[in-house]
Amino acid sequence: MPIAEANAPMNAPRGLAGVIVTETELGDVRGLEGFYHYRQYSAVELATARTFEDVWYLMFHGELPDAAQLAAFTADTAALRSLPAAVRDALPAIAHASALSGPLAGLRTALSLLGATAGFRPLYDIGPDRRRADALTACAAVPTLLTALHRLGQGQQPIEPRTDLSYAANYLYMLTGREPEPHRVRAIETYLISTIDHGFNASTFTARVITSTGADLAACLVGAVGALSGPLHGGAPSRALDTLDAIGTPERIDPWIRERVLRGERIMGFGHPVYRTEDPRSRMLRGIAEEFGGPLVEFAVQVEARVEALLAELKPGRELHTNVEFYAGVVMELCGLPREMFTPTFCAARVVGWSANILEQAEDSKIIRPAARYVGPPAPQPLPATAH
Amino acid sequence: MPIAEANAPMNAPRGLAGVIVTETELGDVRGLEGFYHYRQYSAVELATARTFEDVWYLMFHGELPDAAQLAAFTADTAALRSLPAAVRDALPAIAHASALSGPLAGLRTALSLLGATAGFRPLYDIGPDRRRADALTACAAVPTLLTALHRLGQGQQPIEPRTDLSYAANYLYMLTGREPEPHRVRAIETYLISTIDHGFNASTFTARVITSTGADLAACLVGAVGALSGPLHGGAPSRALDTLDAIGTPERIDPWIRERVLRGERIMGFGHPVYRTEDPRSRMLRGIAEEFGGPLVEFAVQVEARVEALLAELKPGRELHTNVEFYAGVVMELCGLPREMFTPTFCAARVVGWSANILEQAEDSKIIRPAARYVGPPAPQPLPATAH
Repeated sequence: MPIAEANAPMNAPRGLAGVIVTETELGDVRGLEGFYHYRQYSAVELATARTFEDVWYLMFHGELPDAAQLAAFTADTAALRSLPAAVRDALPAIAHASALSGPLAGLRTALSLLGATAGFRPLYDIGPDRRRADALTACAAVPTLLTALHRLGQGQQPIEPRTDLSYAANYLYMLTGREPEPHRVRAIETYLISTIDHGFNASTFTARVITSTGADLAACLVGAVGALSGPLHGGAPSRALDTLDAIGTPERIDPWIRERVLRGERIMGFGHPVYRTEDPRSRMLRGIAEEFGGPLVEFAVQVEARVEALLAELKPGRELHTNVEFYAGVVMELCGLPREMFTPTFCAARVVGWSANILEQAEDSKIIRPAARYVGPPAPQPLPATAH
Repeated sequence: MPIAEANAPMNAPRGLAGVIVTETELGDVRGLEGFYHYRQYSAVELATARTFEDVWYLMFHGELPDAAQLAAFTADTAALRSLPAAVRDALPAIAHASALSGPLAGLRTALSLLGATAGFRPLYDIGPDRRRADALTACAAVPTLLTALHRLGQGQQPIEPRTDLSYAANYLYMLTGREPEPHRVRAIETYLISTIDHGFNASTFTARVITSTGADLAACLVGAVGALSGPLHGGAPSRALDTLDAIGTPERIDPWIRERVLRGERIMGFGHPVYRTEDPRSRMLRGIAEEFGGPLVEFAVQVEARVEALLAELKPGRELHTNVEFYAGVVMELCGLPREMFTPTFCAARVVGWSANILEQAEDSKIIRPAARYVGPPAPQPLPATAH
């Protein structure tokens, strides 16, 4: 019958900003250096040089796989891409119901159903191996769920996953039904790897709070999907592309940006709460976009240069650069992804990061339960007589 | 383009215990006094003297309703008990899929689907009136969802809600199909009111973290349901009753308890992380149980007295009393609720408290996003050559 220690109340900064909740071995973001890492490796180096499966394994196991481990891991996870019949059968209704609320609301429902169907058990009641098995089941199914929901929403039939394709190639394949070109697969794979994890953001924190209650893996992931769907969280890579569309031509960049900055509006795709220098993901994704080339990329590079110059002039002293949204949107557009799939694609990578955080948090037996300060009228007041 | 202040890192106690995240006008728990309140009124007084609808209104609006307000609120919420056809049609599949994972996993899925079907919009994008309307829709539907899922799981048809019954009476009616006896309605209503809110527990905190991203109301509630389903959170009122069953007879109380305490096991239904004295909910529920009377109640009172005496002997200096689980289980049993519905019944009340917290949190524009400390090997290490 353990009883928690009675801690003296402690005021925290608004939004718990800078409050260290836990220790992690999963990685870190160094805002001043413009550097982030997964485990002990540079995330950008991993994204550039490795496969998604390599890095997924790294996040779950703490080390990169050798050739045999990778082959087994790839085969195991590929086999988990097919959905249980009960989930597959429910997807048309879920897609139809989510037409108003968008693909993350559909994923939230479908992932909850998948966890129940697969019999996910409370993390508190199972050991690390079973926890990891549940996490593999969930992560492997997310691309299948997302692409099926998208196609059903478009009035198309879902496409069954293939086990002979990589995670990234199979994702594009399930979306379009066509085997994707290798340079597009590699571009999306690089993006997906770079998006697996990024510090202790609100969805990752949500996943860890739910994990700390000992709930099952689906409960944790569904909470994280919900948090990610919030406009104040990750944002939406499609919005930065919408900005490019709205500007339209090079000569309109300056007046368009000046008008919005002077109105105090935020320019989507610029600025980051942690990075005080260039966002390393943005730099990497710009490089990928430039390999594609073409008018969209040329225009994006022009807009980036002008906006940074204008922001330096209009907001002196602030370090405002493109963030991951800006070139992520460009790269996804170049790879043929429809805009409503930009945030879901983010989610198809981040589910691995959430899961790694859940597996780590599940080793800690302490529930995350802070406090609030009552600031209403003094209590108890006498209860008024009922008027009825 | 607002950029968050770079806060200096601040170490927090494990699990954020005692860390004040926010101010609230919704209520408080005073552990040393054995007292908790909703707004400015004693929660126990409200539970004893008022209707569920009264207190629901109080939580949402900050004051008790007058007769006209209560009549309008009761009619409005009763009209929201019926489910949209898309949700109703999906419930058999959800109930079937959740047979393994339990009723809260089913509620998680169904509530997610309801939010999407009802077109809940991001809280960030809508004003207080629309937020409150979405919250009423969700809260009013939870008893319908829970009872329908339960009946479907038992091979029975769901029972349509009635608008002429109170929230509590309609809940019991939808569960059994029979109009419940008034003393049982009142007992369950008292329990439900006493369970609406209870400080800043993990599910309430989860709901508020998701709210802080600006996500829609279903995203917030689904996260809270997930957190509540964790074995380390609220616990399960059925477990305390299982303990009574396991003990079986008065003469077995002492050896059964001694054996478990000496093995270091926790005795379900005893001890609370906040209360250092009797749990006021437990005291109130014991009173209700004693009005019912009968062998179960007599045995429960005997067990309570002996366990408290034994714990005082075996764990000197600890204040270990029955918590809300103990007599809540007894009361729900006396009211004819099946044990698998004990935690869902808790949920049918707590959804109002979560929603009130969500509505309050939605007024704050600051995302809740703490930090973690990286403690893995120094990064970056050079990336090893690929083995493949």
